[in-house]
Amino acid sequence: MQKDLTLLIDFYELTMANSYFELGRQDEIAYFDFFFRAIPDNGGYAIFAGLEQLIEYIENLSFEEEEIEYLRSKKIFSEEFLKYLKNFKFKGSIYSFKEGYPIFPGEPIITVKGPIIDCQIIETALLLTVNHQSLIATKASRIVESAQGRIVMEFGARRAHSYDAANYGARAAYISGVDGTSNTYLDFIAGVPALGTMAHSYVQSFDSEYEAFLAYAKTYPNDTLLLVDTYDTLRQGIPNAIKVHKEYLEPRGSYLKGIRIDSGDLTYLTKKAREMLDAEGLTETKITVSNSLDEYLIKDLLQQGAKIDSFGVGERLITAKSEPVFGGVYKLVAIEENGILEPKIKVSDTVIKTTTPGFKQVYRFFDKNDKAIADVVTLSDEVINTNEPYLLFDPDHPWKQKLVTDYTVEPMLTTIYDNGKLVYKKPTLDEIRETKKDQLSRLWVEVRRLEYPHRYYVDLSKPLWDLKQKLIQEHSKIKK
Amino acid sequence: MQKDLTLLIDFYELTMANSYFELGRQDEIAYFDFFFRAIPDNGGYAIFAGLEQLIEYIENLSFEEEEIEYLRSKKIFSEEFLKYLKNFKFKGSIYSFKEGYPIFPGEPIITVKGPIIDCQIIETALLLTVNHQSLIATKASRIVESAQGRIVMEFGARRAHSYDAANYGARAAYISGVDGTSNTYLDFIAGVPALGTMAHSYVQSFDSEYEAFLAYAKTYPNDTLLLVDTYDTLRQGIPNAIKVHKEYLEPRGSYLKGIRIDSGDLTYLTKKAREMLDAEGLTETKITVSNSLDEYLIKDLLQQGAKIDSFGVGERLITAKSEPVFGGVYKLVAIEENGILEPKIKVSDTVIKTTTPGFKQVYRFFDKNDKAIADVVTLSDEVINTNEPYLLFDPDHPWKQKLVTDYTVEPMLTTIYDNGKLVYKKPTLDEIRETKKDQLSRLWVEVRRLEYPHRYYVDLSKPLWDLKQKLIQEHSKIKK
Repeated sequence: MQKDLTLLIDFYELTMANSYFELGRQDEIAYFDFFFRAIPDNGGYAIFAGLEQLIEYIENLSFEEEEIEYLRSKKIFSEEFLKYLKNFKFKGSIYSFKEGYPIFPGEPIITVKGPIIDCQIIETALLLTVNHQSLIATKASRIVESAQGRIVMEFGARRAHSYDAANYGARAAYISGVDGTSNTYLDFIAGVPALGTMAHSYVQSFDSEYEAFLAYAKTYPNDTLLLVDTYDTLRQGIPNAIKVHKEYLEPRGSYLKGIRIDSGDLTYLTKKAREMLDAEGLTETKITVSNSLDEYLIKDLLQQGAKIDSFGVGERLITAKSEPVFGGVYKLVAIEENGILEPKIKVSDTVIKTTTPGFKQVYRFFDKNDKAIADVVTLSDEVINTNEPYLLFDPDHPWKQKLVTDYTVEPMLTTIYDNGKLVYKKPTLDEIRETKKDQLSRLWVEVRRLEYPHRYYVDLSKPLWDLKQKLIQEHSKIKK
Repeated sequence: MQKDLTLLIDFYELTMANSYFELGRQDEIAYFDFFFRAIPDNGGYAIFAGLEQLIEYIENLSFEEEEIEYLRSKKIFSEEFLKYLKNFKFKGSIYSFKEGYPIFPGEPIITVKGPIIDCQIIETALLLTVNHQSLIATKASRIVESAQGRIVMEFGARRAHSYDAANYGARAAYISGVDGTSNTYLDFIAGVPALGTMAHSYVQSFDSEYEAFLAYAKTYPNDTLLLVDTYDTLRQGIPNAIKVHKEYLEPRGSYLKGIRIDSGDLTYLTKKAREMLDAEGLTETKITVSNSLDEYLIKDLLQQGAKIDSFGVGERLITAKSEPVFGGVYKLVAIEENGILEPKIKVSDTVIKTTTPGFKQVYRFFDKNDKAIADVVTLSDEVINTNEPYLLFDPDHPWKQKLVTDYTVEPMLTTIYDNGKLVYKKPTLDEIRETKKDQLSRLWVEVRRLEYPHRYYVDLSKPLWDLKQKLIQEHSKIKK
């Protein structure tokens, strides 16, 4: 399914790898974290997606002869290194959140442990895959939440950033709860329901709107959903749709399934449309709307009492238009030197850019009502005894503390690869979708609020906090 | 190279096609225009890109057995239609702007003429391909212009909207004048120079920054470009880079090629860096910067006297972050009925959404200095006699007129497909890049200004304007 992505790699991964190889450092074990610093749209949570494609990428990762030949032509890579690449297979271990889980800034979402060259080689594709799908899953989750249980369909293929963005974007949106897509490929490949009826061109291609509607009803008597805004929604479109129902569908025991409105003021038009349909007894006919929708407009429409059963969301979902970048990064956090783990830190004047060192785990704490209280980042081998109270504290303001009792914890990082071997059983897309729904429901609504949400706590354990402070101190000494 | 994209199609193209087929309309000839309504970022021009991939798509377009089987499982398509799809090959004609040309709102960029089903089936992929690449080519052109001749590199793969966006985005950026990319695949497949040296992780992986720089210089003595901001740019990074030059490179007759700064205030740091390098005689060492750059920041940095030789531009280029949607649409403009061309219009209360009917050509008018004056959209068979003066007028305010003399014209729409046959010889990527440069230089600088540019004129010929007014009148009558 995936094409050869091996050379979709930032060139510096290869120049660094070649240098490590020349220095004889190719077996040195490094640890890299994938994490992000800010939630798009100032939201309260992000949704993790893209792990399945990362796995596909790693499974397909190998340097073919013509790729080696190309690299040789650059005249900067040693023959030994090229031979090494020719036999390259990913040998590292990967620990990751599961797809569909809410994720938060500052915690490791994926940790890659392995030979330093292996860690570098997968960086570009890892970032690209997971940044993209997490971006769209996060946006889609906001849109689905704003629709308050109504149907949401993904209609964005024509504005996606090329083919993969249309396909994997629709996949990520489906994980977050959209009900279907206009993109037929997703139905073909993964069973995501593909939906769609007609464009304005269909209506225009007939001598009149009524003829167009009648022709469509004849082809699809059990699935007659008519686009009513080509000429004039209230004066022509809806009356023509009702007429087709009365004159063609009803006499045959069929029913006008729905109308779609793609322009104009959607609050006003849908209220009027509902009245007109109801007045003719068409109370079961659904009203679908589209036209530059996103979570903000959907929320406003519903607050104004718009009568909408279903939303078609296009460009603003598939491009995450309001904030089209998920800024996940991939940073070195430790190196093994002679078998000893040596945590690494990058200290920045911008506090948020200072990394959290070491090989780590993330525990999500839940209260007795099964609502998430906080995520605690720990050293990988820490054990949390849930029979004892646990002291949470804010890592930036450590005097802000909270002693929790009567809680459960769940480790977030699962082993995906163990020394190059895939040990994770990939869930189906519908299972991931279910996971997303379940896990989101374990967050407080305060965290899920569309605007100005409550900030979810991501804390460090005491041992990890101590380690980080120690390295910051050491680093500050070096600076002087 | 391209994968099977046949089912990357909005489902409604298929439901409409099936309906046309049922109605026996499959041989009816339709005309569709691809056009756009607004230039991203309030710019003065857009750059057309993506035609080559549209051609690849059409060349590969066929419904395979398993795709037909999938469609059959939907239980809404007739067997005759499925059989028709199985034998489907695109049979239409396509007229298009060439890649690299400036394009403007309201003019047909691509016209597709063919059996109505053929026109619908290619809609989704056409829009997706051309919208995406034109978006990135337009953004890249703004960024390249803002850099005023300095080197610009595309560094965005890790933030692209999946794999194709990284690849085709880099392609589009190269067309618009970026000098290279971090994405190795583009070099492998198309010879776009791939560049890159080291990440922060490389520096961190050594016990000290100096050791890291020295190791890199040993591996790449002729290409030593050092990332100097891992710890402290001015107090450590640049002094260490200079030390490596003096102690290792210079004695070997080599030279510190460059430094890269990826954080901090780039105006301040690059001025200081230039001073420090120059003071040590390293006047040829280049200064490269990166970190959330776009055309606005680059313009400001240069205005403030920042000392920069080369810009690495990432997420804000590859996602066109400031405006990530190129809103190109695809509208029915005519149908042949019994061999007679019947122009079609979609009238909207929003004036800009009213389409321009008929089968058309676009002529670009140039003055005697070879600068573009205006584009005039005409009926396809109009002839412009450049020996006679030509009356330009504003289609929205037709009393605004200008009589031009001493001009030349160039038709913009070239035949790409003639009744299903590819008749266009695809230029190389470097030829397209050259075309872009040449054609952009034929626009007035007023139109190329980054902010508040002069609006370039897109006019209608008198015969086309008359036709449009006539159809608007007729349509208004129907409405009453």
